[in-house]
Amino acid sequence: FPLFFNTSHTHTSSAEGLCFSDGRRKVDYVLVFHQRRHGSIRSPASTSVFMELGCSGGNETTEPADHEMRLIRQEFEANLLEAGLEIERNNELKTHGPCFTRLHAPWPVLCREAEFLKIKVPTKTVRYHLFWFSVHVQRLFVSVKLLFMWSKIDSKVTVNFEWKNGISTLIANGVYDSAFPLHDVSVPTRRPLVLHEEWARYSAFYKYQPIDLVRKYFGEKIGLYFAWLGVYTQLLVPASIVGIIVFGYGVATVDTNIPSQEMCDESLNFTMCPLCDGACDFWRLSTACGTARASHLFDNPATVFFAIFMSLWAVLFLEHWKRRQISLSFSWDLTGIEEDEVATVCTHTHSYVHTRKPTHVDTCEWINIKTQLQHQCLAAAAVIEKLTWKDRLPGYFINVSSILFMFGLTFSAVFGVIVYRITVSALMAMSPDPETKSNVRVTVTATAVIINLVVILILDEIYGAVALWLTELEIPKTETNFEERLILKAFLLKFMNAYAPIFYVAFFKGRFAGRPGNYVYVFNDFRMEECAPGGCLIELCIQLSIIMLGKQLIQNNIFEIGIPKLKKLVRAIKDKGSAEEEREEERPPQQWNLDYALAPFEGLTPEYMEMIIQFGFVSLFVASFPLAPLFALLNNVIEIRLDAKKFVTELRRPVAIRAKDIGIWYNILSGMGKFSVIINAFVISFTSDFIPRLVYQYMFSQTGTMHGFIDHTLSYFNVSNFKPGTAPQNSELGDITVCRYKDYREPPWAPDAYTFSKQYWCVLAARLAFVILFQNLVMFLSLVVAWVIPDVPKTIVEQLKREKKLLVDVFLREEKEKFQTRKKLEMEKGLLTNQHKLIDGHRGSFLELGTV
Amino acid sequence: FPLFFNTSHTHTSSAEGLCFSDGRRKVDYVLVFHQRRHGSIRSPASTSVFMELGCSGGNETTEPADHEMRLIRQEFEANLLEAGLEIERNNELKTHGPCFTRLHAPWPVLCREAEFLKIKVPTKTVRYHLFWFSVHVQRLFVSVKLLFMWSKIDSKVTVNFEWKNGISTLIANGVYDSAFPLHDVSVPTRRPLVLHEEWARYSAFYKYQPIDLVRKYFGEKIGLYFAWLGVYTQLLVPASIVGIIVFGYGVATVDTNIPSQEMCDESLNFTMCPLCDGACDFWRLSTACGTARASHLFDNPATVFFAIFMSLWAVLFLEHWKRRQISLSFSWDLTGIEEDEVATVCTHTHSYVHTRKPTHVDTCEWINIKTQLQHQCLAAAAVIEKLTWKDRLPGYFINVSSILFMFGLTFSAVFGVIVYRITVSALMAMSPDPETKSNVRVTVTATAVIINLVVILILDEIYGAVALWLTELEIPKTETNFEERLILKAFLLKFMNAYAPIFYVAFFKGRFAGRPGNYVYVFNDFRMEECAPGGCLIELCIQLSIIMLGKQLIQNNIFEIGIPKLKKLVRAIKDKGSAEEEREEERPPQQWNLDYALAPFEGLTPEYMEMIIQFGFVSLFVASFPLAPLFALLNNVIEIRLDAKKFVTELRRPVAIRAKDIGIWYNILSGMGKFSVIINAFVISFTSDFIPRLVYQYMFSQTGTMHGFIDHTLSYFNVSNFKPGTAPQNSELGDITVCRYKDYREPPWAPDAYTFSKQYWCVLAARLAFVILFQNLVMFLSLVVAWVIPDVPKTIVEQLKREKKLLVDVFLREEKEKFQTRKKLEMEKGLLTNQHKLIDGHRGSFLELGTV
Repeated sequence: FPLFFNTSHTHTSSAEGLCFSDGRRKVDYVLVFHQRRHGSIRSPASTSVFMELGCSGGNETTEPADHEMRLIRQEFEANLLEAGLEIERNNELKTHGPCFTRLHAPWPVLCREAEFLKIKVPTKTVRYHLFWFSVHVQRLFVSVKLLFMWSKIDSKVTVNFEWKNGISTLIANGVYDSAFPLHDVSVPTRRPLVLHEEWARYSAFYKYQPIDLVRKYFGEKIGLYFAWLGVYTQLLVPASIVGIIVFGYGVATVDTNIPSQEMCDESLNFTMCPLCDGACDFWRLSTACGTARASHLFDNPATVFFAIFMSLWAVLFLEHWKRRQISLSFSWDLTGIEEDEVATVCTHTHSYVHTRKPTHVDTCEWINIKTQLQHQCLAAAAVIEKLTWKDRLPGYFINVSSILFMFGLTFSAVFGVIVYRITVSALMAMSPDPETKSNVRVTVTATAVIINLVVILILDEIYGAVALWLTELEIPKTETNFEERLILKAFLLKFMNAYAPIFYVAFFKGRFAGRPGNYVYVFNDFRMEECAPGGCLIELCIQLSIIMLGKQLIQNNIFEIGIPKLKKLVRAIKDKGSAEEEREEERPPQQWNLDYALAPFEGLTPEYMEMIIQFGFVSLFVASFPLAPLFALLNNVIEIRLDAKKFVTELRRPVAIRAKDIGIWYNILSGMGKFSVIINAFVISFTSDFIPRLVYQYMFSQTGTMHGFIDHTLSYFNVSNFKPGTAPQNSELGDITVCRYKDYREPPWAPDAYTFSKQYWCVLAARLAFVILFQNLVMFLSLVVAWVIPDVPKTIVEQLKREKKLLVDVFLREEKEKFQTRKKLEMEKGLLTNQHKLIDGHRGSFLELGTV
Repeated sequence: FPLFFNTSHTHTSSAEGLCFSDGRRKVDYVLVFHQRRHGSIRSPASTSVFMELGCSGGNETTEPADHEMRLIRQEFEANLLEAGLEIERNNELKTHGPCFTRLHAPWPVLCREAEFLKIKVPTKTVRYHLFWFSVHVQRLFVSVKLLFMWSKIDSKVTVNFEWKNGISTLIANGVYDSAFPLHDVSVPTRRPLVLHEEWARYSAFYKYQPIDLVRKYFGEKIGLYFAWLGVYTQLLVPASIVGIIVFGYGVATVDTNIPSQEMCDESLNFTMCPLCDGACDFWRLSTACGTARASHLFDNPATVFFAIFMSLWAVLFLEHWKRRQISLSFSWDLTGIEEDEVATVCTHTHSYVHTRKPTHVDTCEWINIKTQLQHQCLAAAAVIEKLTWKDRLPGYFINVSSILFMFGLTFSAVFGVIVYRITVSALMAMSPDPETKSNVRVTVTATAVIINLVVILILDEIYGAVALWLTELEIPKTETNFEERLILKAFLLKFMNAYAPIFYVAFFKGRFAGRPGNYVYVFNDFRMEECAPGGCLIELCIQLSIIMLGKQLIQNNIFEIGIPKLKKLVRAIKDKGSAEEEREEERPPQQWNLDYALAPFEGLTPEYMEMIIQFGFVSLFVASFPLAPLFALLNNVIEIRLDAKKFVTELRRPVAIRAKDIGIWYNILSGMGKFSVIINAFVISFTSDFIPRLVYQYMFSQTGTMHGFIDHTLSYFNVSNFKPGTAPQNSELGDITVCRYKDYREPPWAPDAYTFSKQYWCVLAARLAFVILFQNLVMFLSLVVAWVIPDVPKTIVEQLKREKKLLVDVFLREEKEKFQTRKKLEMEKGLLTNQHKLIDGHRGSFLELGTV
């Protein structure tokens, strides 16, 4: 706190480049526009021409030309001056290049703003009263009151006036290029020392983040993001540990596990039906020993426990975050904050209003509005208020159909990869080269997953842009609304994109392959793919880990580090070219020049989105991959510092925005937590072999042990039932009459051969019963967990009580004095009759009565 | 509003018996104590003796005698006087009988209280500011401000000081008998006219309740109860209509329904296995035609739709109530209310503290505390704060074990009725009288349900008392806490009690009966009961309707109307006896005498509880009884008026209590709504025949129709497999070798005879799949419904916006004036340099900027 106290408006700050030319007034905000070479300076008198553009001349000025921009800037800056701000510009009039307008908000303006905030935020008033009362009681000096006001203003660090709104419209219209507050360099290094040393370094990964400092420097919204990321990462630690233990259990028990022993036992000699038509031979089950053993690592009873644990962990995480959020909103004084409803729509709807005319608005009025829109946002808001559902219908229609189209795109991408896998493996199986043949599965799986990953990464970028475009078409009324809809759409699309292939492997792969003699064919030629002999779970596990790790590594390294660096390089080269021409003024670059060279801040949505998709990997399919939390933890430890570095050194300082919570992200997280319960229930009961094993042990096993389980899961097939041409030619295994395949079907000698057997229905019932049991148990436990953990931490409850008591005490003392004065007066007036003779034994217990 | 304006403190109210003897000051509150015959008046000087009871003399005064009570009263009333209240007592000192102390709160005291409330309630301050601003702007007179204050105070109608707290302790200690505000008779009839005419009459059943008046007269807590009841009843109307339509669909399709046609078709000639051992004969399925047809009324596809509808209805109801609550809290100005945490524990913990000493409290200190406890609540609170978990452990232990014991009691009651049914039907079946034999089922079912009902009603009363006792043992710290725990416990016990028999019929009856040749026996002799041939659903329906109707009718009529009348009669007789002795003073009874003769108000818990249990009947098993909402609606229409009548004419006026919501009842309702989804899913899939019918039609039927369904559901039994002595002797149906029974088992000629068949597992899987589908679909739809309906109604959002805008406008105008004054001053001082030359084109757009 003391360190950052001087980042605010101490008028003695003497750092180079941070102040007006008088060296005293601090630069709070910078407006930048690009002077174009051909710009001629017009006289301010022509303003009126622009302003009085009536109905007649409206249609000529659809694109404001340079001189109009200049006029708008002049008017805007005049308004700023009138609002009490102070402005400084470079004296030398450059003919081109960036031109900086520096703003300073003097003390009275800040006071007014603080006052204004105070009224808008109810509890503030009360807390102010409270403070004032305690000051009054303790007979402190007035200076304390000033100190209080100071900290109120300090909490706003960067000047965040209502006109911020206006500026975003102006930037959207090209009047200004950009607008940002300056990074603070009043401390030795170029960036604030503490943030740099304690936060934005990889070597500080084990430390708690200095969240209060982050919030003071970047504002509440970014502070909340980092606090949230911190809580999430912190809670990943226990999840990782339990995940490692569960995985360790799998490793430890793999040698004593009877099903995998039986699969590896060559003496059992199961002859399996061929994996492809014609070209493939019969094969021994014991050759799939490796995948069977690997499968046990992830598919063991501990996984069920882990799935329950992780569902509760998700609830715990959300509850924990709720508490942290409440703590923060108390210590950051955000309790009474209300969302500003009447916010910027203009930035996004500009293009819409320009291109389309609402049905019922008069053409003349419309042109007027279009003209005024250049610098007045209210008109746009008025137009939007007037939009009927008829005006909005096309937007909604495009929305729904686009989203459906995107879903279709995702599904066809997944299907494309499936077709790739089927065809390539079929072609490779037919190749004469034995080496190619033996590597079919490995080659195909690896290439397919990489194709999947690339498709996901590409579509991710496309979907981000599409979501923005679609939300702009919808024209939401407020900025909050806009952001929420954008996030929701982007989330839906990106979630679908990232998880569609995983869903396919978990719940659909191998379920539509048919049975020997009656396979399902794609394009009349290629058999639908089946899972590896070890079960689908191991494939799910591979798919999940590659997509998760690949996405994290590539997005982190290439997109978050590489591309910004590249952009910076490109900008530097470009600037160099234009700067070399006029090297006449060889001054050290000012702070605003340095900051202007940085990349602009583009919102927290991508950061949150990345983490939420990761949360999905950690919660949704965790039953199949217990190490997911560990990988997420490792990623996040780096991610925090990476983001911190980016915010401190690579982006222009963002405008501090007040926010009382993380908004719709909480709802998305909570929805995902709920969804994960049912997904995990299905993964355990349908993808893993947990239920069939249980059913075998307790219903069909003769000995009550797992011996004979593999035999039980394999059905018989009479080779003579193969369709002509699909049976293997010249089998190496000799003369085979009956082969086995993994399914619960009647044997060829039963009256209803090859139909589902009683075991099939029995196992299916058990699987479904498990889903019901698991889902309801976990939901119940979640409710209990959420109920047991109070939302408001105890310390805050007690603090509130103390504050209230203080207030009440002061009030009561004053009241008592007032009352006694009045009574004295009454006594003097002789109004107190002898009617009540009871007043004698009292000992001033009014206060006690009052506070009971 | 204008009507009730004069119920508050207009000093001109001249009604008889409502004022002090001067006819001007209104009686706000009455304290009553019973003067005992032997009471002698001691001098006030002895107060000190009582107060200075130290460590030495503490153990003699465990029960405060009459004179001590008198002293406490004196001290208490002295404190009231000091707090500014005015007191009046009867002048003639009666030697015995009720003695009334009337209290009046003068204007300054009310103002002080209002002021006090204002500070405790943050938003009030703001709204006050707001009002003040608008007054300021519109240049209204000061009187408006006064009017505002007035309505603030008026909202408290009855004086609800902090000392209310103290009084409940004093009443618990026997110092006073009772304390209550007076009913208001300043309007022509004895009770407030409008409430009487528009609300508390059965003939007004079709009208909306005058909720605002109810709240003004009884306070917010009771107002909220009636508002809630109103919303609930209103929403029952659509549910009833849909229920009637669903029932109508059943009635309309009963003749075209193939399964019931087949059951009634005598030509199909199914010979069923006997219903009891030895004494019973084989029987034809067609004799059960009646129940089959009745069953179809409730067990048809429309029921599934209705179950989904009702689950969504429950969500809709809760959302609707949330909105209504928010509307009310705005119009009643409850938004910022905080619960008073430091409330009365003393009333309930009195007995505990008296009988047991915390381990670590010094004996001497303990005696001191015990002595002081008589009139000082703080000490008790201090003791409770000091209690460690070691002190609390026995309480918790007794709690848990008692609740488990009560659960056991409920279950044994249910089991008792089952045993009664089994034994009586077995005995009646063996009776030689053919008439007895034919009426077995009807007689047994009817008597059993009535026994069930009686047991439920008795246990209900016992459980209420047990819950209170258990909560007192727990010693919760605050009053809110106490109430919540009490409600939760009472709800758990009463819910169990009311629903245990219904759960038994729905999910357990007939499932443990075994199969022919291998029945399950109770007490070695009696076969477990089976459902009626028409299926369990019709039995569930009968059970549900009888318990629901019986409970409503009996509790409404006898408990709510009869018993209070009886009590009143008893009291009147008793009073008459004592009053006749001293008929000397033949005055018309004062209002306080009349009110004292009424029954005291005992809280809303029983009213809410009754409705919540009813909500259970409407939501939990609604799939089996679509007419439940209709019966609930009929009951509630009466219930509202019954409760209104009771509150207006039969109870002492309750102290107005502020409350911002209905508290824990909302959570209970919401929990029940969630629970109902899974219960209805199970009722449809397991209790009804919906799923077996579907499975038959789409998997086993040769023709794709329902023909042959009955044959398919009946398994075969070879009569020779009957255990010796259990086969029927001399069957009337001739020589039977194979009989049928309702189950999916292998026929006697299959290799694994009498084990569950493939159909069984298939149907089971389908049932379970339906549960999953239904539950998740309904949960998803509920989420959507809750998300689509905004919590805060649009009108209120807009009103808030308007208020805020008004505030901001005023602020900005003032600010602008201030700023311009300052600028003018600066101009005069010559501080404005020529540095910025841009100030020319501005048109005072600061205001626009500010409001964007």
